[in-house]
Amino acid sequence: MTILDRFFKGDVRALSRLISFVENQAPDYQKLLARLYPRSGRAYRIGFTGPPGSGKSTLVDKLTSKLSKEGNKIGIIAVDPTSPFTGGALLGDRIRMQNLAGAKDVYIRSMASRGSFGGLAATTKEVALVLDAFGKDFVIIETVGVGQVELDVANTCDTTVVVFVPESGDSVQAMKAGLMEIADIFVVNKTDREGAKRIISELESILELRREKDGWEFPVVATVAINDVGIEELWSKISDHQEFMSENGILQQKRKNQVKIELKEIIENKMKKILEKKVFSGLNLEEIAERVLKGEDDPYSAGERFLDQADLFD
Amino acid sequence: MTILDRFFKGDVRALSRLISFVENQAPDYQKLLARLYPRSGRAYRIGFTGPPGSGKSTLVDKLTSKLSKEGNKIGIIAVDPTSPFTGGALLGDRIRMQNLAGAKDVYIRSMASRGSFGGLAATTKEVALVLDAFGKDFVIIETVGVGQVELDVANTCDTTVVVFVPESGDSVQAMKAGLMEIADIFVVNKTDREGAKRIISELESILELRREKDGWEFPVVATVAINDVGIEELWSKISDHQEFMSENGILQQKRKNQVKIELKEIIENKMKKILEKKVFSGLNLEEIAERVLKGEDDPYSAGERFLDQADLFD
Repeated sequence: MTILDRFFKGDVRALSRLISFVENQAPDYQKLLARLYPRSGRAYRIGFTGPPGSGKSTLVDKLTSKLSKEGNKIGIIAVDPTSPFTGGALLGDRIRMQNLAGAKDVYIRSMASRGSFGGLAATTKEVALVLDAFGKDFVIIETVGVGQVELDVANTCDTTVVVFVPESGDSVQAMKAGLMEIADIFVVNKTDREGAKRIISELESILELRREKDGWEFPVVATVAINDVGIEELWSKISDHQEFMSENGILQQKRKNQVKIELKEIIENKMKKILEKKVFSGLNLEEIAERVLKGEDDPYSAGERFLDQADLFD
Repeated sequence: MTILDRFFKGDVRALSRLISFVENQAPDYQKLLARLYPRSGRAYRIGFTGPPGSGKSTLVDKLTSKLSKEGNKIGIIAVDPTSPFTGGALLGDRIRMQNLAGAKDVYIRSMASRGSFGGLAATTKEVALVLDAFGKDFVIIETVGVGQVELDVANTCDTTVVVFVPESGDSVQAMKAGLMEIADIFVVNKTDREGAKRIISELESILELRREKDGWEFPVVATVAINDVGIEELWSKISDHQEFMSENGILQQKRKNQVKIELKEIIENKMKKILEKKVFSGLNLEEIAERVLKGEDDPYSAGERFLDQADLFD
C-alpha cells in the first residue's frame, strides 16, 4: 500500500507523514495537494487568535474535548511564533497532548510561524487541506497575534474567534478599526479577573458602530476557559455562525473567494520561484548595490534593465 | 522652469507635488525616482513606532523642534491607519502643523497605511527618498504598530525607536522575541504614570538576553514628551547610534542591504503588474473557482496550467 492509500484508510502515521511532506514543501507536494483537493471541503474551519497569554490553547482544548465527546473528528493546527529565545512551541504541544490524551480522533500539529511575530506559517492553509481530506469534521487553527498578520486567519477560516483578556485594552485599541474585518465572534477569557466588565463594554461600544455584517450580529462571549465556564455558550455562537453562513449562501461565497485568493497565491509563488531562479540568481545584487551607493546606478533603472533582458520562460 | 528645476531650487510646493506624484504612483513615477536617486543618501532616517496612544507624535514634534532650532532641515512622514471609522489622520496632521508652525524647514506629510492595522504605506520608502533628495538632514518616519508590520520600518530606517507607555505590558510580551529585530532604542514615554518602573525593568530583562548587537547596547530612555522631559537624552542616544553605525561601517552595510531589498521589491512589483495584466486578466477566476468547488478542478493544477500557457513577455 502506498502512503496515500494508508492515508485514505485513516492511518494517523500516514497523515503525519503527508503533513510533514507538505510543511517541508517537498518535491511534488503540490501534486499531492492536487490529489487531496477533491476530498476536501467537508471540514469546517475555525480560527482562534488573540494576544499571547489570553488562553487560546485552553479554550481550544476545552472546546475540542466537548466536540470530541460528541463524536466529532478534530484537527488542531497550533501556529506559534518562532522565537530565538524559547525555541518555539514544542513544549506547549506536549503538554496539550496530555490534556487531550483521552480524546479520540483528535490530531494536534504545531507549526512555527513565518516570523517571530505570530501570524500563520507558510503552509498552514495546505496543512488544513490535508486534515480536511483526511476526514476531520473540524479543523481548528490557533495562532498568537494582534494586527495585520491575523487577516490571514480570517481569510483561511470559516469562523474566526478573537480572544481577549481583561488586560487587553491596549490591543483592543490598536485593532479598533480592523476588528470586524477579522472577527466573527469575540471572547473575553479569564473574566474572573478585574477589568472584565470594562473590556466587554469597550468591545460592545466598538461593535455599536457596526453591529451587523450581512445580518450577522457580532457576539461577545465571556469565558473562564480553565474552569470550563462559557464553553457551551461559545460553541452555541460558533454553531449559530456556521448555520448563518450556510443558510445565506455566505459560506459558499467565502469559500469561492478563498479559492480565488489561493489560485492567485499559487501563481504568484510559482512566479517568485521562477524569479529567484532565473532572475535574481543572474543578478549581481552586490555589484549593483555598490554602484548604487557610489551614485553610478539606481535600483529603478537597474530593475527595468534586468526585466528587459530576462527571458523567464525559456 | 520645470517642476523638477523648482524642486532642486528648494521650492516647497514643487516638493509637495512630486510627493503626490510618487504617492499616487503616477505614470513614469519610477523614472522620476531614478532621477532623484543620485541626489539622495545624505539624510539620516529615524523611525518611530509603537502602540496607539504612546505619544509618538509628541515625541517626534519635540525632537523636531529641537533639531530645527539647531539649524537642521527635517522631513516627517506620519503614516496613519486608514480607518473606516475615523477617516484617517488628517486632523492630527493639522494640529501638528500648528505646533510646529514656528519651526523652519520642517515638512510634514501624512500618509495612509496600506491596511487598517498600521505599518507603512505602499510608497513610504519612495517619499522618504524624495525628501532626502530635496536636501533634508533628517527624515523621520512615524507609524502606529506593534508586530510584524514594523519590520518594514526597521528595514527602511537607519535608527529605529520603539515607544511604549507604562500600560504597554501586553505589547511588550507580544513582541518579546522580535523586539531586537526592530528596535535600536527603546523609549518608555509618559513615565509620570503608574507602572513606569515595571515596564522599564521588563524591557531591561528582555534586553539582558541579548544586550549587544554588533557591539550596540540597547538603551531604554524614560520620557515625558509633553513636558519635554527626556528629549535631550533621547537625542543623545539617537546620535550615539548614528555615530556607532557610521564608525563601524554598519550604516554602509545596512544601506547596501536596503538597496538589495529595494531592487528585489522593484522587480517583484513589476512582475506582479505583468502578472495582473497578462495572466490574471486572461484567467477566468470565477469559472475556475466554481469548477473547484464542484470538485472538477483544483487550484494547484489550474495554476500550473495557466503558467504553462502564459507568454509573459510577448
